[in-house]
Amino acid sequence: MNLREVGEFGLIERLRDKLNPADDTVIVGIGDDAAVLSYDAKSYVVMTTDMLVEGVHFREDTIDFRSLGWKSLAASFSDIAAMGGIPRHAAVSLAIPPSYEIESLEQLYEGIAEICSEFQAHVVGGDIVKTDGPFVISVTVNGEAAQGKALLRSGAQPGDLVFVTGTVGGSAAGLVLLESSQKSLLPPDEQLTLITFHQRPVPQVQVGQILRTSGGCTSCNDISDGLASELNEIAAASGVGIRIDENRLPLAPAVTNFARITGQNAIDWALYGGEDYQLVGTLHPLAYSAVVTACQMNGIRFTLIGRVIEGSGVVMERSAGGETVLTARGYNHFTE
Amino acid sequence: MNLREVGEFGLIERLRDKLNPADDTVIVGIGDDAAVLSYDAKSYVVMTTDMLVEGVHFREDTIDFRSLGWKSLAASFSDIAAMGGIPRHAAVSLAIPPSYEIESLEQLYEGIAEICSEFQAHVVGGDIVKTDGPFVISVTVNGEAAQGKALLRSGAQPGDLVFVTGTVGGSAAGLVLLESSQKSLLPPDEQLTLITFHQRPVPQVQVGQILRTSGGCTSCNDISDGLASELNEIAAASGVGIRIDENRLPLAPAVTNFARITGQNAIDWALYGGEDYQLVGTLHPLAYSAVVTACQMNGIRFTLIGRVIEGSGVVMERSAGGETVLTARGYNHFTE
Repeated sequence: MNLREVGEFGLIERLRDKLNPADDTVIVGIGDDAAVLSYDAKSYVVMTTDMLVEGVHFREDTIDFRSLGWKSLAASFSDIAAMGGIPRHAAVSLAIPPSYEIESLEQLYEGIAEICSEFQAHVVGGDIVKTDGPFVISVTVNGEAAQGKALLRSGAQPGDLVFVTGTVGGSAAGLVLLESSQKSLLPPDEQLTLITFHQRPVPQVQVGQILRTSGGCTSCNDISDGLASELNEIAAASGVGIRIDENRLPLAPAVTNFARITGQNAIDWALYGGEDYQLVGTLHPLAYSAVVTACQMNGIRFTLIGRVIEGSGVVMERSAGGETVLTARGYNHFTE
Repeated sequence: MNLREVGEFGLIERLRDKLNPADDTVIVGIGDDAAVLSYDAKSYVVMTTDMLVEGVHFREDTIDFRSLGWKSLAASFSDIAAMGGIPRHAAVSLAIPPSYEIESLEQLYEGIAEICSEFQAHVVGGDIVKTDGPFVISVTVNGEAAQGKALLRSGAQPGDLVFVTGTVGGSAAGLVLLESSQKSLLPPDEQLTLITFHQRPVPQVQVGQILRTSGGCTSCNDISDGLASELNEIAAASGVGIRIDENRLPLAPAVTNFARITGQNAIDWALYGGEDYQLVGTLHPLAYSAVVTACQMNGIRFTLIGRVIEGSGVVMERSAGGETVLTARGYNHFTE
């Protein structure tokens, strides 16, 4: 159905119907000038925002609207997780080309409702406007974190251990698969694994909590721009150097399989691909055993990949011998 | 200077330099995964968002970048004010055409810094992305309001008084002036008054506080879409009717002058123009004298324009006699 038929207000009604009912943290939800939200008196509010533009951040041929809804909020939930916070309330604004079908936007909101339901978060506001340009999604999320030390980028100390959660490179591999004519060389279940990595990344809220309460996590980032970029941010913000070991990078079997079949480099996907939305950071050695035990109990993969040293920059020891300086090659708007 | 020369990260540095230093409500500001914010333990957080698209919400020939920065945040601050809250923290995301000059964006941020400084609010985050379409600004603001009754749209009762703050129709008159070839018929000081109404609306945060603490404000909206639209929202949300008196609508002399000179209708600007960002709402009669006294002491114009009745819809008694049903003719994206 065409947007002109229902107009702005009809569309808002239909999208609102897709959302989960508010809980008691939402004193006033959608429908007034602003939302009124209740946070624990002993908490800080953690606020983050992301903007996604069609053709720059996503394309209709590599992600469906429902997954796009999930992923748009996942990116912001992941930022909250990387601060050791819990996502609570989201505002979602859309600039929509008038040619869009309402059904597509309803699917987008189904994906938004799905991730909100999974993380007990709520959409409490937004704005719907038209544009003559590409589709734009802007998401702002408020989360909550107990007062005290947040997980910053700037606290890494020489001697700390470098960790990463889950596996890395999967999102980039999934994107290559979606754009590839060689899909069928990979077994169907591995295809699905890669597509899920790309389209349905899972924000690591639980491990963010584990890291924060451990008291020993000295820096943390979520992987939006690739491991090389995130590690460089931590090294620069903390005034230290970082050495990692190529052999230790956690890659999913489907990722290494697909790299082998297509003659591509899985390590490059991990280092420069981004959008894995895993957490990477540094840990005081004394905190390691408590963190790894808590992760194991919750089925979370937690891998040590290197250590923090005096100096600056990020170096990777190659499995074939020798080492490589890793520079931040994450996406830079305007220069590429 | 061109964006390609400095890239995304150079631009972020330059824009950040324009902003005011953070205060002690900002535990972690710009530069990490998310901001960490401190609110009073006895407060709710009030959250609102607005998205503005070039060519739809603004045009370069009717507003300069500095004023655009002011006005973008003013719209959200006004929503917070209309809930009886105080704006505190803003996230600003920009989708920027690569052809833009950095200087323009710096001016935008000067306007943002100016309004933040005026209201002791802070920009604590954002996102900068490129777009092949029009320039898009997305603003989300967190404010603070003491726990207890917010100023909603839905509490108006028959017998209540209908009020509006400041004057109305000025923003629409200013836009007409900016697009007009008849500018010079109006004295320069009145031209400036109208342009200021359009480009530099002032969010009514203080009167929002007065209304809220009075305990007698039964409904409140800010005027983003025009008086007719806002009054219809209150009537519908509250399940009541509203009668207003054309004679009582507060118009600035420059507005009536300009309408007379150009043969246009100042009342239409007030009813359907929008973007005045004054507050309109309803008040229990017993609260009137306290509110009007507090407004007078603070130099705020506060005008009674009608009353709440049983029934539904909004009717205006014409100064020429007779009455007109006012329908919501605010801008509807997609149907126009």
